[in-house]
Amino acid sequence: MMRLSPPGYAKFSQTNTLELAYGGGEANVAISLAYLGLNACHVTRFPDNLLGRAATQFLRQNWLDTSKVVYGDQRMGQYFLEKGAVHRASEVVYERDHSAFARLKPEMFDWEEILKDADWFHWTGITPAISQGTADACLQAIKVANRLGITVSADVNSRKSLWQYGKTRHEVLPSLIERSDILMASEYDLIDIFQLANDPENSSFKEVVKEVSQKLPRLNKIFDKAREMVSASHHRIQGKMWNGSSVAKTPFLDVTHIVDRVGTGDAYCAGVIFGLLHYKNDQDALRFATAACALKHTVEGDANMVSFENVKGLADGNTSGRIIR
Amino acid sequence: MMRLSPPGYAKFSQTNTLELAYGGGEANVAISLAYLGLNACHVTRFPDNLLGRAATQFLRQNWLDTSKVVYGDQRMGQYFLEKGAVHRASEVVYERDHSAFARLKPEMFDWEEILKDADWFHWTGITPAISQGTADACLQAIKVANRLGITVSADVNSRKSLWQYGKTRHEVLPSLIERSDILMASEYDLIDIFQLANDPENSSFKEVVKEVSQKLPRLNKIFDKAREMVSASHHRIQGKMWNGSSVAKTPFLDVTHIVDRVGTGDAYCAGVIFGLLHYKNDQDALRFATAACALKHTVEGDANMVSFENVKGLADGNTSGRIIR
Amino acid sequence: MMRLSPPGYAKFSQTNTLELAYGGGEANVAISLAYLGLNACHVTRFPDNLLGRAATQFLRQNWLDTSKVVYGDQRMGQYFLEKGAVHRASEVVYERDHSAFARLKPEMFDWEEILKDADWFHWTGITPAISQGTADACLQAIKVANRLGITVSADVNSRKSLWQYGKTRHEVLPSLIERSDILMASEYDLIDIFQLANDPENSSFKEVVKEVSQKLPRLNKIFDKAREMVSASHHRIQGKMWNGSSVAKTPFLDVTHIVDRVGTGDAYCAGVIFGLLHYKNDQDALRFATAACALKHTVEGDANMVSFENVKGLADGNTSGRIIR
Amino acid sequence: MMRLSPPGYAKFSQTNTLELAYGGGEANVAISLAYLGLNACHVTRFPDNLLGRAATQFLRQNWLDTSKVVYGDQRMGQYFLEKGAVHRASEVVYERDHSAFARLKPEMFDWEEILKDADWFHWTGITPAISQGTADACLQAIKVANRLGITVSADVNSRKSLWQYGKTRHEVLPSLIERSDILMASEYDLIDIFQLANDPENSSFKEVVKEVSQKLPRLNKIFDKAREMVSASHHRIQGKMWNGSSVAKTPFLDVTHIVDRVGTGDAYCAGVIFGLLHYKNDQDALRFATAACALKHTVEGDANMVSFENVKGLADGNTSGRIIR
Amino acid sequence: MMRLSPPGYAKFSQTNTLELAYGGGEANVAISLAYLGLNACHVTRFPDNLLGRAATQFLRQNWLDTSKVVYGDQRMGQYFLEKGAVHRASEVVYERDHSAFARLKPEMFDWEEILKDADWFHWTGITPAISQGTADACLQAIKVANRLGITVSADVNSRKSLWQYGKTRHEVLPSLIERSDILMASEYDLIDIFQLANDPENSSFKEVVKEVSQKLPRLNKIFDKAREMVSASHHRIQGKMWNGSSVAKTPFLDVTHIVDRVGTGDAYCAGVIFGLLHYKNDQDALRFATAACALKHTVEGDANMVSFENVKGLADGNTSGRIIR
Amino acid sequence: MMRLSPPGYAKFSQTNTLELAYGGGEANVAISLAYLGLNACHVTRFPDNLLGRAATQFLRQNWLDTSKVVYGDQRMGQYFLEKGAVHRASEVVYERDHSAFARLKPEMFDWEEILKDADWFHWTGITPAISQGTADACLQAIKVANRLGITVSADVNSRKSLWQYGKTRHEVLPSLIERSDILMASEYDLIDIFQLANDPENSSFKEVVKEVSQKLPRLNKIFDKAREMVSASHHRIQGKMWNGSSVAKTPFLDVTHIVDRVGTGDAYCAGVIFGLLHYKNDQDALRFATAACALKHTVEGDANMVSFENVKGLADGNTSGRIIR
Repeated sequence: MMRLSPPGYAKFSQTNTLELAYGGGEANVAISLAYLGLNACHVTRFPDNLLGRAATQFLRQNWLDTSKVVYGDQRMGQYFLEKGAVHRASEVVYERDHSAFARLKPEMFDWEEILKDADWFHWTGITPAISQGTADACLQAIKVANRLGITVSADVNSRKSLWQYGKTRHEVLPSLIERSDILMASEYDLIDIFQLANDPENSSFKEVVKEVSQKLPRLNKIFDKAREMVSASHHRIQGKMWNGSSVAKTPFLDVTHIVDRVGTGDAYCAGVIFGLLHYKNDQDALRFATAACALKHTVEGDANMVSFENVKGLADGNTSGRIIR
Repeated sequence: MMRLSPPGYAKFSQTNTLELAYGGGEANVAISLAYLGLNACHVTRFPDNLLGRAATQFLRQNWLDTSKVVYGDQRMGQYFLEKGAVHRASEVVYERDHSAFARLKPEMFDWEEILKDADWFHWTGITPAISQGTADACLQAIKVANRLGITVSADVNSRKSLWQYGKTRHEVLPSLIERSDILMASEYDLIDIFQLANDPENSSFKEVVKEVSQKLPRLNKIFDKAREMVSASHHRIQGKMWNGSSVAKTPFLDVTHIVDRVGTGDAYCAGVIFGLLHYKNDQDALRFATAACALKHTVEGDANMVSFENVKGLADGNTSGRIIR
Repeated sequence: MMRLSPPGYAKFSQTNTLELAYGGGEANVAISLAYLGLNACHVTRFPDNLLGRAATQFLRQNWLDTSKVVYGDQRMGQYFLEKGAVHRASEVVYERDHSAFARLKPEMFDWEEILKDADWFHWTGITPAISQGTADACLQAIKVANRLGITVSADVNSRKSLWQYGKTRHEVLPSLIERSDILMASEYDLIDIFQLANDPENSSFKEVVKEVSQKLPRLNKIFDKAREMVSASHHRIQGKMWNGSSVAKTPFLDVTHIVDRVGTGDAYCAGVIFGLLHYKNDQDALRFATAACALKHTVEGDANMVSFENVKGLADGNTSGRIIR
Repeated sequence: MMRLSPPGYAKFSQTNTLELAYGGGEANVAISLAYLGLNACHVTRFPDNLLGRAATQFLRQNWLDTSKVVYGDQRMGQYFLEKGAVHRASEVVYERDHSAFARLKPEMFDWEEILKDADWFHWTGITPAISQGTADACLQAIKVANRLGITVSADVNSRKSLWQYGKTRHEVLPSLIERSDILMASEYDLIDIFQLANDPENSSFKEVVKEVSQKLPRLNKIFDKAREMVSASHHRIQGKMWNGSSVAKTPFLDVTHIVDRVGTGDAYCAGVIFGLLHYKNDQDALRFATAACALKHTVEGDANMVSFENVKGLADGNTSGRIIR
Repeated sequence: MMRLSPPGYAKFSQTNTLELAYGGGEANVAISLAYLGLNACHVTRFPDNLLGRAATQFLRQNWLDTSKVVYGDQRMGQYFLEKGAVHRASEVVYERDHSAFARLKPEMFDWEEILKDADWFHWTGITPAISQGTADACLQAIKVANRLGITVSADVNSRKSLWQYGKTRHEVLPSLIERSDILMASEYDLIDIFQLANDPENSSFKEVVKEVSQKLPRLNKIFDKAREMVSASHHRIQGKMWNGSSVAKTPFLDVTHIVDRVGTGDAYCAGVIFGLLHYKNDQDALRFATAACALKHTVEGDANMVSFENVKGLADGNTSGRIIR
Repeated sequence: MMRLSPPGYAKFSQTNTLELAYGGGEANVAISLAYLGLNACHVTRFPDNLLGRAATQFLRQNWLDTSKVVYGDQRMGQYFLEKGAVHRASEVVYERDHSAFARLKPEMFDWEEILKDADWFHWTGITPAISQGTADACLQAIKVANRLGITVSADVNSRKSLWQYGKTRHEVLPSLIERSDILMASEYDLIDIFQLANDPENSSFKEVVKEVSQKLPRLNKIFDKAREMVSASHHRIQGKMWNGSSVAKTPFLDVTHIVDRVGTGDAYCAGVIFGLLHYKNDQDALRFATAACALKHTVEGDANMVSFENVKGLADGNTSGRIIR
């Protein structure tokens, strides 16, 4: 998606220039992984015009393999962001309908070919929420990944309000999730998606993931994070992980001067994926993911453009931000 | 529409900021008339969100009465503009489908109320080209204007490629044009719209307008302009007018250093409307309109933000651009 | 007034671009009320040149009715702002002398006509401080408002140093205040304006307003706020109100990352006016006003461009700044 | 003066940033001379606040000696510039009244001390036009310069409309001009200032300067330039010089793509002064001055920031603008 | 190289922001070819720090394959550009010494591997001018290309002043040129490089290339262009080609409003390469190359970011710059 | 040095504009002293091109005497800064090798002449770390200062990694330090430079300075500061001073919202120098220096552009940042 936002803390009525970047759940995860040092390929559909080309160029600039992007139609998904501060919330308007992405058809992608050299496939709950086409393509990709023995991770965190094409998320997501190995999801998501009987206000993450994991034999681990919002400028972040038997948590990281709050969940997912690939110890992976998430709050734009050294330093407890020279 | 363009002559892939303005045929004409000193009201439909509000604020800032704007849906029409120079053409991508404007319904507007104090109603051929709803609303407005004795002017110049909703321009436009008093149209437009037998390459403006005017008893005058494109940076502009019996032409104005070429046709229309209201002599009106058109090439954005004194000076032959202090 | 400030935290010697906005006590209150959803009209005098037109356009853009602005002379009031942070104070230089506003004469305004449909009239102590002309016009307007039964509110908070035309504030303000229904003033202001015997350092808001209110039979309520300045980047705001018999206070709101501190008092006034019109309960109005004041610290420019929903959310205790999508 | 202008060709209503620079007749000449390699000192009065300091810093940055600037009052002279193109004229609004400069008093400057090491003193007709104080100080400085044997040059070109303090230019300027050695003036200026009987429309430069020079025994040379304004974007410049017996002219230089037209007359004066000091041959000086003037049209801001090599190259006929590497 | 330039026509002393792009002879050619639709790979050495990464990202954004870039050392080649207009020349300062590129060693590149799938190898005379290392690496690459049967093209146009490491261009270039198939060179270059007896001022392109081609049996074609510099803002461009037996020339293309003159020679080379690959007819290739060169003058930055359709349109004679929508 | 940094918190790959300023240890101290009201002269060597001129102009703009700058060579020292926030550290890349400064020779400076009217000479440990030439020139200057009875202050804080020309800091610095009167140094620096036996982790500032001061009879006072880095956005600063017999410390100043952390050590040095010259009481000087250091964190760029009043206010305990109007 094209991201358009007034500079600084201005409102749309206060500006005649907009800052332009590109983002979106899976793209953000891919870029983040590329900055951490992995080869990452983003598969999507862009409009066949100057906007689609510019978006592709943005992904290439940020180290992604874009050879699998397909082109067609004329509209680019967009979102408009007015950045808030302290007690003033950021405001976001999405324009995803009728975009080249929303109109993609499963047959536009040859997943056997696309995934043939891949080690990992990541999807988010936003994709199946956009249209029947994206939901179908996502399911096909996951099935191919399963067949090829590729690890599948899922960030299910899609707001209910996204589902506008006639399906609800508890109709669609379970069949995708049950084919995934790693899950990022809160207890609220899981209760809703799997239509559990638990009372969302009185169920712990542990209770819910325990129950859900019984239904999902393939599932390996479930990650979540706690976010305390002191204000729009100050969040506190904690990583949580269910490893099949117990829940581990990190200490809170205190992000006292937020630069850009968007994409922090995607940064967490990328941290989880990288961490699981890089570390033997799940706890190390969790700390790495939490540090990645915290660092994203200090990076402009949707994607977490920080290096492995940056994240590792914070995961190892160095919160001082001392100048690197 | 929201207009988004890279700064200066940059391409989309060269920038991370976009310049933001708002424009569109009728809005441009209205703003131009407001700068010339008339009271102008823009009637449209905007999305009911921060983009619709910001667009309204832009119109208000540029002196328009926005009390008749209606709100609904979520999408704002957009266009993306890469500015060219010399031999490099500007490129424009439009995103009008599914916008709040495209989805308007005739019953959203009470034209009797809207037009009750108006002296003039102007429409462009873009409006009926967008959707059945806009076409119907346009026709209704014209009919009410006719009933109230309000002068109706039409800029028919809508590219064929705009018509995507199942109707062609020669099916729709004639019934709107025959209820209009003043027409802005080239011989090419007229041959196509009225499906004349004339060969577009070998028919003069005079021949065509003569023939067309016989079919249109209400019609008063037809205006057109010649545009010689030396390059993307240098155009030459001439005004032309059929007054019912003969064709008058102005000398060419030489615009040697184009700042912004968009909206120059709308500036011409505004010049025609203002000129006909202000001058007794048609020839004066034509010169005024041509000068307004030429000046627009030096103003950033879609609309011609110049004063009556600015236009009159050039219409009177002062091409020197001497500093006003 | 034209507001000119270097970008970010730069000093004048560090920049070759200035950010341009417009503001001023009453205009800020009016814009704030317009964003909250009221019809607001700003009455002033601007220079009759491109600066006066641009200022008018700024007000129009921000929803104000500018039909009562009068034009004349050549100078626009200005102020220059260097924004500070933490221990570095912001610096402001005012240039108000000889402006079109300072030179206005009472006879330039027909208050009967201007106020004929109004429900509320608001003035600030800055206006009568500028010149005899502005003081006289302000008094005339208040008298007309009284006659028409329009509520009059006054923000008396004008620095002593403003009074340069030969009168002091205790000579001029009492006769304006005694005709006002709602007052925004601190105990320090009131002691000075009414030349009370109280020791400013040892008198409470309650003691002083009690005494003052005996002299002002028309007066209904007095509002004030406490501002703890932890640093230039961090203030704490509390609303206070005397309702004729007792003093109510809100909890402190902690503004930890100030974006723009200018105009926060005007935002408070607008919150008071809107709150008193909207809520039955004074305490609700006070909470609303305090929230409005706190939010202004996060908005660039002089005026509080936030919606009713924004303010109400904070007044209701939602300090989290959660993204609105 | 502080110069404030919208970026590019925008109008004040189209921008929320202004470009900031400083300029003014004598300052422009001084900066231009400094860039050509001379030691130049600017003597003026600035406000005693952050604006006066920033203006001083601008002059220092541009190589001037600012040790003779005096400070007082609060207002900085300003001008607002909207840049035009082609047929659209630039518009300028001046705000000079009540500035620190306008309020200077002759006794604030010790000219004996200021001029003790100077070789040349230059004044413009703008200075005595501002106030009695500036006129008196200018006359005092010229008298001291005469006494110290310093060459005095005068650019008399002050628009009549500048004179607002009760004196006209033909009352004030003659006594200043008669003490000057070098004059920059057109025949129109001279007829008006010396109240000659010549018809301005039918008198040549030669006729007029011949007559004037008889009244001015001290006068050495009179320089003027012809400016053909093809449009706001394209001027043609010719230098003219009366050397006491005959008039010499340069060929026209064709400035086809004007970047900034302001200060071109000051650049010409600086070229005259430098040329007369540097060249033995008046004709060489004239060519140098004309080239300096033409080059200023390509430099942003008020002052001609070009080197001796830049000017000499053009004076020697190199119009190709070949890249210097 | 990192390209740093003040915005617009500002000088370094007038700005506190610099525009950042990346460029350099071969990179410009490669980017230009990529925009025309070819797969292009840039082989170079960048510093192993954030600057080297950012430069790589720029190349990736502009469609290049950067998998062959090697990293080491700390310094990025740079150049500083002050853009001129009309009679004011642009000024360029280069900082190439001690850069990662200047310090590359031939053994850092495995040309067999790099070129194994290539069809074409292009080098410029700048590379062997920088250091012995770059000269050696260039020769090695050419030899491998010869061995693999890859077409080699050479843009010999390296200024004499570049050669600072102890060799002159006539010592080094001939052995590289004699292994090349296509040459871009003027008669002046050729006389100097091959130390011909011809008088540069009185020898035609035809005479010189005839003579040179006898010494270079491998050589196929020699391209050159004529550039008439009306001013820094207006050039006229003509393509010239020696096909082994005769010289062909295109008409002049008139670039009347130059946006960015840098890299126009590289755009010509890219046009030659693309043209020779795409067209059967040399004359078509020459017209295409000349059009590509002319278009580059309208594109910001070093590289010609225009499409095949853009160039073909101009090569086919469409100079009107009509908006593409 | 030229300082180039992306705007705000952007990374190099996210921007196409860089912010340009100039800085460097001694220059920062000199500018800071000039803003505090002293006459300050910066002695250095700049390249003889447009970059050297622009750097000189920056120094002049910031009130320095630049008459002692010498010019030669082509390269300007540079550094590239990516600004971090919270847990993300700023990153700096230096390019000092081969610069005009690194290549200076002692004989290029006539220190007798340069220092003849000076009261104070300040050097930093960076200068002798760059090259043998700079080390020699620094020593010469100190010797001349000693001879002329000028106070010499030294900020020894040069990172070990700077020393690349074959000498280590403990070989070079002692002979410079023993000729200095005032020292800014931490216990870690001193242990390393004087190769003390103390364990850096278990020695107090007091212990170390006591020992060092015995070796340095000339030495008068040693200043240091404690910096607690809560995060990259929040530091706490404390001043420390050894006056020959005891260590004094200030309370910590809490810099909660850092704007620019670079140059804060230089601001401290300038505060020490000014404080010692201005105050009789060392403790006052220390408080002044600490306040100067804290304030620098709120000023963009390398140098502390704050006034005496700004610093004194904070030194006197006013941390509120109340607007100055």
